Amino acid sequence: MALLLHLTGIDEAGWAKGFREAMPGYRVVTRSDAFDPAEIEFIFVWKPATDAFEGLDNLKAVLSLGAGVDALLEHPALPEVPVIRFVDEELTHCMSDYVISQVTMHQRLFTRYAAHQKAKVWSQLYPPASHEISVGIMGLGVLGTDAALKLRAVGFSVNGWSRSAKSIEGVEGFAGDTRFMDFLAATDILVCLLPLTEETRGILNMQTFKALRRGRLVGGPVLVNAARGGHQKEADIVAALKDGTLGAASLDVFETEPLPRTSPLWEIETCFITPHIAAISNEHSGVRYFSQIIADHAAGKPLRNVVDRGRGY
Amino acid sequence: MALLLHLTGIDEAGWAKGFREAMPGYRVVTRSDAFDPAEIEFIFVWKPATDAFEGLDNLKAVLSLGAGVDALLEHPALPEVPVIRFVDEELTHCMSDYVISQVTMHQRLFTRYAAHQKAKVWSQLYPPASHEISVGIMGLGVLGTDAALKLRAVGFSVNGWSRSAKSIEGVEGFAGDTRFMDFLAATDILVCLLPLTEETRGILNMQTFKALRRGRLVGGPVLVNAARGGHQKEADIVAALKDGTLGAASLDVFETEPLPRTSPLWEIETCFITPHIAAISNEHSGVRYFSQIIADHAAGKPLRNVVDRGRGY
Ligand SMILES: NC(=O)c1ccc[n+]([C@@H]2O[C@H](COP(=O)([O-])OP(=O)(O)OC[C@H]3O[C@@H](n4cnc5c(N)ncnc54)[C@H](OP(=O)(O)O)[C@@H]3O)[C@@H](O)[C@H]2O)c1
Ligand SMILES: NC(=O)c1ccc[n+]([C@@H]2O[C@H](COP(=O)([O-])OP(=O)(O)OC[C@H]3O[C@@H](n4cnc5c(N)ncnc54)[C@H](OP(=O)(O)O)[C@@H]3O)[C@@H](O)[C@H]2O)c1
Repeated sequence: MALLLHLTGIDEAGWAKGFREAMPGYRVVTRSDAFDPAEIEFIFVWKPATDAFEGLDNLKAVLSLGAGVDALLEHPALPEVPVIRFVDEELTHCMSDYVISQVTMHQRLFTRYAAHQKAKVWSQLYPPASHEISVGIMGLGVLGTDAALKLRAVGFSVNGWSRSAKSIEGVEGFAGDTRFMDFLAATDILVCLLPLTEETRGILNMQTFKALRRGRLVGGPVLVNAARGGHQKEADIVAALKDGTLGAASLDVFETEPLPRTSPLWEIETCFITPHIAAISNEHSGVRYFSQIIADHAAGKPLRNVVDRGRGY
Repeated sequence: MALLLHLTGIDEAGWAKGFREAMPGYRVVTRSDAFDPAEIEFIFVWKPATDAFEGLDNLKAVLSLGAGVDALLEHPALPEVPVIRFVDEELTHCMSDYVISQVTMHQRLFTRYAAHQKAKVWSQLYPPASHEISVGIMGLGVLGTDAALKLRAVGFSVNGWSRSAKSIEGVEGFAGDTRFMDFLAATDILVCLLPLTEETRGILNMQTFKALRRGRLVGGPVLVNAARGGHQKEADIVAALKDGTLGAASLDVFETEPLPRTSPLWEIETCFITPHIAAISNEHSGVRYFSQIIADHAAGKPLRNVVDRGRGY
């Protein structure tokens, strides 16, 4: 039995080497190797081609390099086997780094002081203390929970929104669509860490921005999106930044990536753009994680972090 | 017996009202009230005039609104009574907010991405994880300790430098002048939270910057100063930012405040200027703190947070 690697646009050979070293007794192949599709037990994918799964009649599971599986679930020939997503401590750590840097930048009124520096103006306006600011995290999964706990440790008030009720110490939870407006009304800085599903597509829109709390942050409430570009309506973000509905935004993801040069977002001084680098899957931990999944399966243990295809995440 | 308020340039009447409410049995006066200097037991000062202490023959202690007492200790007529500085949880909280915001901004390569955004360039360079970056905190007192613990909670490696040896969980301590170079060599982001004394004046100079670790942060090591302008040689900071010895700097304090319009620091794109607003003493906690000090003294308890005039802090 074998593991097939099918990775587009990234270092497939490097990953193959890593897996061979981690699982010496196991056969690891890539598309350029000679193999019988019937011997493939697991396929490890990133942006799989349309025919990626053809002939894989003995497949046990699809292993997804990405933590987000929204694109994979749209694959027209995805087999009816468990899809396992990558849950990566190192990625989680980097995502929280990103979130804390953006949240604290806005809490400390960065755009105001940058404008003052440009004008060589010395004007003492004291930023609010972190405990006076509520960060509202959309999605209390692996990423949202880690960010929430660290923001609490820094001193922020933290609200969280999720589908099912969660209990995270020190975090005020709002569960389900019926609590969404209450969650927004209690939030000064909105952080999106949702999976992209039918329910969450386009959720970062003008109506959402208008429902955020006003008055605590000079300039207006703030949006931070590090989940997926599909969550946001960029025309609404542009309008909200221009009319003051939002005071600032930090965006790591976009409707179209790379962000086209024609996007007005590039030139808005209160919009902070990074090129989808909030957090990346780490090869070392990826090899360790998926090797363990395969070893656990061989030992008869249940699969972990299986995607619920009905929910879409 | 009475408390005299002598505050220059801030809301003396507001503080007087606060103290009167907190200590109803105690006489609270300001310079505009009629009082006998001999009845003054405590004087609460901010930027005291030259004659501030004249005739105060029964003074028990000088209460300093500022956490830093460098200017007060230079007062030519400071009486030989204990000087008590303000240790304020709220100020400490805000200072850590400032430090975390600046440290994470630089760890996440802010200047690089700002330049890319300006040029509409999409280029994926992944910032280092916080655990790969060592923050070196100069001064492990009230402020340095709180910042160190919170940076640890976020995930950074943290080094600390102090006069005497300290043991703070998870923080590598370097004590005394003999360890200063080792401390710098292990530091990517240098944060100054020292008091200003004869020993620490001008300590943020080119020699110090050259001794910092290189290679972990794209662009070079970073300086954050939120202590006193007297710690820094601004000509050296300008030179270090221009020749790459420093990758970036965040400065909240300056040799001359307000920072003169002629300072070259305003125009350096890798220099982030705030107008001495990292943290401010809070009136509410100040009234509570000093009222308690006076009440403790009346109850025969020892004075807290007395400045060591020999050390200068
Ligand atoms: N920018 C980047 O570099 C980057 C890197 C990695 C991941 N990501 C994105 O981050 C996303 C989140 O990752 P994760 O590992 O934290 O996911 P996760 O563990 O599956 O957590 C998802 C969270 O979202 C909540 N949720 C889902 N649908 C919802 C809805 N309709 N209404 C309210 N809450 C809903 C879930 O609620 P329940 O708890 O009730 O299920 C859960 O709390 C990924 O899907 C990926 O798209 C981005
Ligand atoms: N920008 C702002 O808004 C703002 C606001 C408040 C305060 N500040 C400044 O921050 C400073 C620090 O405040 P704090 O409350 O943390 O002071 P603190 O509690 O007195 O702590 C001072 C620390 O510095 C260390 N230190 C002093 N001299 C040293 C030397 N020569 N070499 C090595 N270490 C030395 C001390 O070492 P030991 O532990 O061995 O004594 C101690 O750890 C204040 O003095 C003030 O100037 C700035």
